[in-house]
Amino acid sequence: MDREQALLLVKPQLTEHRYQHTLGVMETAIRLAEKYGADTKKAELAAIFHDYAKFRPKDEMKQIIEEQNMPPILLEYNSELWHAPVGAYLAEIEAGIKDEEVLDAIRYHTSGRVGMTLLDKVIYLADYIEPGRHFPGVEEVRKMAEEDLDRALIQSMKNTIQFLMKKNQPVFPDTFNAYNSIVTNTGG
Amino acid sequence: MDREQALLLVKPQLTEHRYQHTLGVMETAIRLAEKYGADTKKAELAAIFHDYAKFRPKDEMKQIIEEQNMPPILLEYNSELWHAPVGAYLAEIEAGIKDEEVLDAIRYHTSGRVGMTLLDKVIYLADYIEPGRHFPGVEEVRKMAEEDLDRALIQSMKNTIQFLMKKNQPVFPDTFNAYNSIVTNTGG
Repeated sequence: MDREQALLLVKPQLTEHRYQHTLGVMETAIRLAEKYGADTKKAELAAIFHDYAKFRPKDEMKQIIEEQNMPPILLEYNSELWHAPVGAYLAEIEAGIKDEEVLDAIRYHTSGRVGMTLLDKVIYLADYIEPGRHFPGVEEVRKMAEEDLDRALIQSMKNTIQFLMKKNQPVFPDTFNAYNSIVTNTGG
Repeated sequence: MDREQALLLVKPQLTEHRYQHTLGVMETAIRLAEKYGADTKKAELAAIFHDYAKFRPKDEMKQIIEEQNMPPILLEYNSELWHAPVGAYLAEIEAGIKDEEVLDAIRYHTSGRVGMTLLDKVIYLADYIEPGRHFPGVEEVRKMAEEDLDRALIQSMKNTIQFLMKKNQPVFPDTFNAYNSIVTNTGG
């Protein structure tokens, strides 16, 4: 699937604002992929589809999580997390994407996971730093992403965990585990 | 075992500084137990023994963790965590403490755990706020502990997680899980 086809499939699923965000993630992901040696075509495809399920009704997402035997713990945490694994599923069955690396990068783009692949990291970070993002700390992570992908990833995860803790919200275990995994593997 | 006997058993295991800390934890734990309706005698005993294993050699602690089939994941994390479960074990076999509630409060006083008992919370928090403690954020938690035990506990856990994240250190899963458990149960 080329870029035009992919964008044509995704656009009707998104608001205009979210479509612009998707274009920002796409450009950022391609740039990060080039810089750090990931597959740019896979990065492009995963970026375009990363929010494919963002606006599905909660009921539909819940049903898919249950019927497709996704981790039931998802349903105990913020529904903001659901669109990522549901999006990977729908990108496969509705858009015919079969590449497991691409599907994983979509699946884990919100939570992260233990042992993230280079492509997972590129999509996670592109989603965090694309030019349309404006929130405290994003500029620091943008600068880090120019120097060190893992350092930028760690910082973005720390920001996310702190943001949730400030609101006294629980943190999805995959996110904690991803943080632990990456600080341990990069030597802390 | 009364207070005098317990202190006589613990004192030779500790430095003078750590013994003074233990007395601070004891007084604070009794006060919190009275305030929130925990068993003051159990709080006293758990507080006195909470750091019983603090100065055991790492090799000895490692051996006990392995031989007593404690969670092997402990060995992957900071050895500062080891003295808590090892202390619970030694308080039982060396000092004859059999009360499981007291032993659990010792066992989880550093990491916390999912579903902390009232006594667990009292000891965890007393260790954090006793008068000899001086670090950023402790005064805020001391004040919270006068009003709301769970709120103070959440804040102390957040501080601990933030402290570790600032140093790019991994966070022991029990601590993350304890945080998630308590913010979920107190309604966020």
